[in-house]
Amino acid sequence: MTKAEIKQIKQLQQKKYRQEYKQFIVEGWKSIRDFILSGYKPVKIYATTEKDDAVFLKSDFEIISSKILQQISALKNPNDMLAVFSFKTKTDLPESGLILSLDNLQDPGNLGTIIRTADWFGIKNIVCSLGTVDCYNPKVVQASMGSLARVQVFYTDLPKYLSSLKIPVYGTFLEGENIYQSVLPDQAAIVIGNEGQGISTQTAECITRKITIPKAPTSAAESLNASVATAIVINEFKRKSFL
Amino acid sequence: MTKAEIKQIKQLQQKKYRQEYKQFIVEGWKSIRDFILSGYKPVKIYATTEKDDAVFLKSDFEIISSKILQQISALKNPNDMLAVFSFKTKTDLPESGLILSLDNLQDPGNLGTIIRTADWFGIKNIVCSLGTVDCYNPKVVQASMGSLARVQVFYTDLPKYLSSLKIPVYGTFLEGENIYQSVLPDQAAIVIGNEGQGISTQTAECITRKITIPKAPTSAAESLNASVATAIVINEFKRKSFL
Repeated sequence: MTKAEIKQIKQLQQKKYRQEYKQFIVEGWKSIRDFILSGYKPVKIYATTEKDDAVFLKSDFEIISSKILQQISALKNPNDMLAVFSFKTKTDLPESGLILSLDNLQDPGNLGTIIRTADWFGIKNIVCSLGTVDCYNPKVVQASMGSLARVQVFYTDLPKYLSSLKIPVYGTFLEGENIYQSVLPDQAAIVIGNEGQGISTQTAECITRKITIPKAPTSAAESLNASVATAIVINEFKRKSFL
Repeated sequence: MTKAEIKQIKQLQQKKYRQEYKQFIVEGWKSIRDFILSGYKPVKIYATTEKDDAVFLKSDFEIISSKILQQISALKNPNDMLAVFSFKTKTDLPESGLILSLDNLQDPGNLGTIIRTADWFGIKNIVCSLGTVDCYNPKVVQASMGSLARVQVFYTDLPKYLSSLKIPVYGTFLEGENIYQSVLPDQAAIVIGNEGQGISTQTAECITRKITIPKAPTSAAESLNASVATAIVINEFKRKSFL
């Protein structure tokens, strides 16, 4: 591994370099496998041991020491494998089906967990505001546990996008219709707000149905974690398909 | 602030010292307020500015510099206030109602989020295996957003406890009864397993009803995040009370 290679991989921990090189890193063989199987092209795979896995056969593979892996990894405790991938060309913004929309979500752990939950429930598209944390942030990739390979994450002017949609736009608020009493459609955009501020004023104007997750009458809790709230809302939209 | 005080507060970031002194730290005035309002006694409160809040009136209050706060804080970006609290005497282990049970949960962020979710849905008691992460770990306290003040978290021999219960014991498995098709009772223990390994063999033997959160037929996701899975299960047990 050249010094230039090491430098460039470390740069990929920053958004501006990911956007410049149109590349991102994935760590751990399970996740790397998921990305290849989903059609992502690895630029190169670095590993501390050989992996006897047909999925990696066609890839440019280099054995490196644990010390070098520690240097290029974004993790405190690196796995045994790190890969550099190229961005995949995205399709057009989704206009139908169940679409998750994130309005300035900030925490990378939350975004990764939300991508994982969307994947579990078969939601293929997440449309984020431009202020939402980057999905190729190493902490997002890590928390998504490979699900980022299967879910498309778009970044766009959210109010403009939402107001162009012909399907209903749901948003979660502290005051809104009780989600358990709502008849939830198969096609909708579901907007989730920022961890502290909730949904921004401009995005709120595009919402056609305000819903809420009611809390127990005795509860003094102020709010739910953003990825938990998202999971409960997705669960409510999807549960009828499992009945 | 004396050097000895600084040293002792920093020691409280470690479980062994928390157990020795029977104290823990809480950061941020909102959370500190929640603990006092829930009957916890602050040993001392340290803040960078005076707080004109009646809740703190009876407490031993000391103004410190931001530099000292940075030193004693467990956070990268400290708030303006840190308090040392004494453990509160716990009641006996719960035997009725809806009880959440955690089997060797490891991630402090997950435990904090689960405590917050339990609080939202009015679940008062969480019973953990002895191998579960300590609820007074600063990252747990932080992620619980004050909810730890209102939810009792017990640590005990989980299989022994569960097998003594007279209410049904539910456990989440990758293979089990579809949770959406199950009639869920008002009184039950709900067991959630470790992030990677799930429910341990010994604990699994105490489970009377195996349930599963089904995934979309097209999904290749392997699992859900532990705090997301817990939220969905709690949601399913509680949703009928909001209908």
